[in-house]
Amino acid sequence: VAAVVLLAGGTGGAKLARGMLDELGSDLTVIANTGDDIEIYGAHVCPDPDLVTFWLADAIDSRGWGLDADTFFAMDQLRALGDAVWFNLGDRDLAIGLHRAQRLADGARLTSVIDDVRRAFGVAARVLPPSDDQVRTYVKARGEWRAFQDFMIRLRGRGPIEDIEYRGASVARPSEEALSAVREASAIVIGPSNPVLSVDPILTVLADEIRAAAAPVVAVSPLVRGEVLKGPTAACLEWAGRSLDSDGIAAHYEGLIDGLVADRRASDVPTLETDVELADPESRRRVARAVLEFAAALG
Amino acid sequence: VAAVVLLAGGTGGAKLARGMLDELGSDLTVIANTGDDIEIYGAHVCPDPDLVTFWLADAIDSRGWGLDADTFFAMDQLRALGDAVWFNLGDRDLAIGLHRAQRLADGARLTSVIDDVRRAFGVAARVLPPSDDQVRTYVKARGEWRAFQDFMIRLRGRGPIEDIEYRGASVARPSEEALSAVREASAIVIGPSNPVLSVDPILTVLADEIRAAAAPVVAVSPLVRGEVLKGPTAACLEWAGRSLDSDGIAAHYEGLIDGLVADRRASDVPTLETDVELADPESRRRVARAVLEFAAALG
Repeated sequence: VAAVVLLAGGTGGAKLARGMLDELGSDLTVIANTGDDIEIYGAHVCPDPDLVTFWLADAIDSRGWGLDADTFFAMDQLRALGDAVWFNLGDRDLAIGLHRAQRLADGARLTSVIDDVRRAFGVAARVLPPSDDQVRTYVKARGEWRAFQDFMIRLRGRGPIEDIEYRGASVARPSEEALSAVREASAIVIGPSNPVLSVDPILTVLADEIRAAAAPVVAVSPLVRGEVLKGPTAACLEWAGRSLDSDGIAAHYEGLIDGLVADRRASDVPTLETDVELADPESRRRVARAVLEFAAALG
Repeated sequence: VAAVVLLAGGTGGAKLARGMLDELGSDLTVIANTGDDIEIYGAHVCPDPDLVTFWLADAIDSRGWGLDADTFFAMDQLRALGDAVWFNLGDRDLAIGLHRAQRLADGARLTSVIDDVRRAFGVAARVLPPSDDQVRTYVKARGEWRAFQDFMIRLRGRGPIEDIEYRGASVARPSEEALSAVREASAIVIGPSNPVLSVDPILTVLADEIRAAAAPVVAVSPLVRGEVLKGPTAACLEWAGRSLDSDGIAAHYEGLIDGLVADRRASDVPTLETDVELADPESRRRVARAVLEFAAALG
């Protein structure tokens, strides 16, 4: 296995990316979801690409988001000024978003600005957005459309979900970097992220290229022992009409994947049955290796 | 002496403001220079109004600018991302500027947004900009026009100064709050700030109203024992054709002031001769009291 592309949302995808980094080093390219991006406090925040980057740099905080030991003096000051701070950002995280907003305003591409962060943290693997164009995930819940972060934080990601839109997707073009990575990959892995909210925003831009790619495509199930570890995956699968099991995941990626990695077998797609919990460095590396070997066997 | 207006730039004016606060409490209104304002990192920074506010709140850092014990994690992160950080802002200071930028973008007046900071720090005295309109100080040095902060920080305020412009001044209107404060004042004090770079940007907007006001107008010399304590006052007075002494200061404010407070007598204006160094709380309060009594005697 040479160059590998991993599609990732937040925590699940990022943890697998970290395991893959041990196996692949600079042969790993992560295409991270930018449907969750948000402009706030003058900053352009890319939660998923940054979460992936922080994981790859071993700089993720134990709280599960943001930078290790980051401080929150700026947010505290905003609160002291009377602002309703609902989206929390550490001081260094804020600076990353301010840097990105400035560079974008100066005409830089999103790909380039996300790469600034990767390079600043000395990460060998690449982290790419699927597109330099804006694709934003909106969720309809309780009769109202909300931007992704608004739904996740203010509504705490609570369903039922009535509808989902990837705004901008119909006109967004894949970046040259993402296209090349997909075309040149020897394996394409869909990480164990929320299929609807984290992976589909990438697929709205790249699904055709992934289907056309020579490489085998393998999805890693986000379900561990039949359960969702984090986030509104159950509500999303329910909205999408999928069952909350390996068959539901396989059905969601039907026509796209050549195999599934999950702890329970799917009926209609080759499945590598293995524990997919990514709780520690050893398990992350073990699952990464198993996924890569499975993909190689399917290729 | 009831309501008093103090015109202030940075450190000198802010120190006198702190002494006046002891004497006047909420009867003090500081009109602070906004010619040094700068938009940077997505923030709208008002160095002089904030410096005054931090002094009034006993929150100024011992380095002479910024908030006491502020941290600089955001700036460190910007540097790590490769940004040339030439304008240093603490994390809480940055948040103040981001709050202000957001509120201004939402349509708030500069007066209101500067007042947010004052209220957040629980300062009893008011801190006002002279105008809600933008007036920006530009300095020509070495053949090139530079915005104030660029001149002060990148050129380290080094003269000779070839020209100075207050851009926007010809169309800027005084705010209602500044106008009322000047009209209702029982004394108007020009603080010991740089006459050309800190006070004149205020006077370009408010000089006519100050001349028309009933209150006596007293200037406090920024010169201590014939010396400039801080900043490019010497180069500025030289450019303005003023001597670096009490006569030069008096000449600069000719037709505007009724008296001068300085440690050396001026020839053509009533002078209160007293030590005007504001090195500690006692001297700040003593000078403030002396200035107010002098103004009352002139009134």
